[in-house]
Amino acid sequence: MRIDVHFNGSSTGQHDVHDRVVLVVDVLRASTSIAAALNNGARAVIPFEGVDDAIMRARSLERSEVLLAGERKMAPIQGFQLGNSPREFTADIVSGKTIVMTTTNGTAALASTSGAAEVLVGCFANYSATLAWLRAAARGGKSITIICAGTNGRFALEDAICAGRFVRGIARRGIQPELGDAASVAAIIDRRMGGDLLAVLRDSEHGRALIEAGLGDDVTYCAGLNTHSVVPVYRDRQVVRLGDR
Amino acid sequence: MRIDVHFNGSSTGQHDVHDRVVLVVDVLRASTSIAAALNNGARAVIPFEGVDDAIMRARSLERSEVLLAGERKMAPIQGFQLGNSPREFTADIVSGKTIVMTTTNGTAALASTSGAAEVLVGCFANYSATLAWLRAAARGGKSITIICAGTNGRFALEDAICAGRFVRGIARRGIQPELGDAASVAAIIDRRMGGDLLAVLRDSEHGRALIEAGLGDDVTYCAGLNTHSVVPVYRDRQVVRLGDR
Repeated sequence: MRIDVHFNGSSTGQHDVHDRVVLVVDVLRASTSIAAALNNGARAVIPFEGVDDAIMRARSLERSEVLLAGERKMAPIQGFQLGNSPREFTADIVSGKTIVMTTTNGTAALASTSGAAEVLVGCFANYSATLAWLRAAARGGKSITIICAGTNGRFALEDAICAGRFVRGIARRGIQPELGDAASVAAIIDRRMGGDLLAVLRDSEHGRALIEAGLGDDVTYCAGLNTHSVVPVYRDRQVVRLGDR
Repeated sequence: MRIDVHFNGSSTGQHDVHDRVVLVVDVLRASTSIAAALNNGARAVIPFEGVDDAIMRARSLERSEVLLAGERKMAPIQGFQLGNSPREFTADIVSGKTIVMTTTNGTAALASTSGAAEVLVGCFANYSATLAWLRAAARGGKSITIICAGTNGRFALEDAICAGRFVRGIARRGIQPELGDAASVAAIIDRRMGGDLLAVLRDSEHGRALIEAGLGDDVTYCAGLNTHSVVPVYRDRQVVRLGDR
């Protein structure tokens, strides 16, 4: 089997994901928010690229069962109950609810995975749970594509480090994948820079922008390793807990 | 001043290059071919994205003074005198000639630089000559954007290592640039993987594809450091030697 990493979600084509297990990584903050929501009892997260599409979808659902969430340029969207801060997705707010979500980068990356055998959503918060599932797929011979959502279609350090940690986690104890250029590089980046996750996330371009916007606590949250045990899977255009459907 | 690196040429926008010095890197093989052509006496290299556009432009020039060069999927183009192998651009063939060139990745990257203060073409072959120019620009306070052409819009290891070497070369002896995420990562990649350029180029995805296509000698050529002293600059839609115009 083989592992490929895409540093820019926007450049991923159907050929890159066909019949593969795909992991979408958007550490700051969509992946972490999705993991938090599902971990805390949300029934599903339905991602949309556009704000209007999200509002339309929310209207089609029972009002008491749905929450609109998302951001544009890190800021909340008018009329939405939630932003894109994982700290907002607490059990008392999201339990039993369907979250209709639109974010700048993560949602677009999910939309590019059509044709994949399975699509998971990963981050540091649910690293070990997701890794176990990926290792099982790798043992079964499935190749894996890790898509870093990036920031506005650009390289994002935090996503690359997270992707590299997954590469390193898969490629050990009996699994020897063939690595694409970017997968090799991601593994090296994690090994060299991933020692202090909080420090490196705070020093990343996106992390610094969030801190400047007063969202430093989100960066701290997203740097937490294995705080959740949920494995979010994207099926039929919604993200649910693996095993729920 | 600041250095940013773009691993995927396709994601570069006007905002990223505005008023900056831009370096386009396509080690395998467009940058190296351009350096070889200009080093060996070609008057100019005129890049085009499309084959038909290249043919049309060549027809507008004096037949005895122009050569058509380029590749599609590493193979020569019918009716073109030259491919994209830097070994073809020898003095007896290119001296005094204008080369109209179309390549898969490098040409597209050049096309994305509109609005830049200056656009250079760099690779290992002309590393030191180009670096000297970039350091002078950095000392003058100009920020620098390095665009890796990549392979089919994807991350290419050889371009990232070359970009990292330029980052490291600029950021020393009195110049302390602010580094974007990708620039920091490129520098680390070069430091960790760039020790044996020939080995790493031969082992890269693109290098292996070239070797399989029987073009291993091109990979060896492109891994050569400082074999040329030319600094190609892209002005008025053509690439010429810095100082010629």
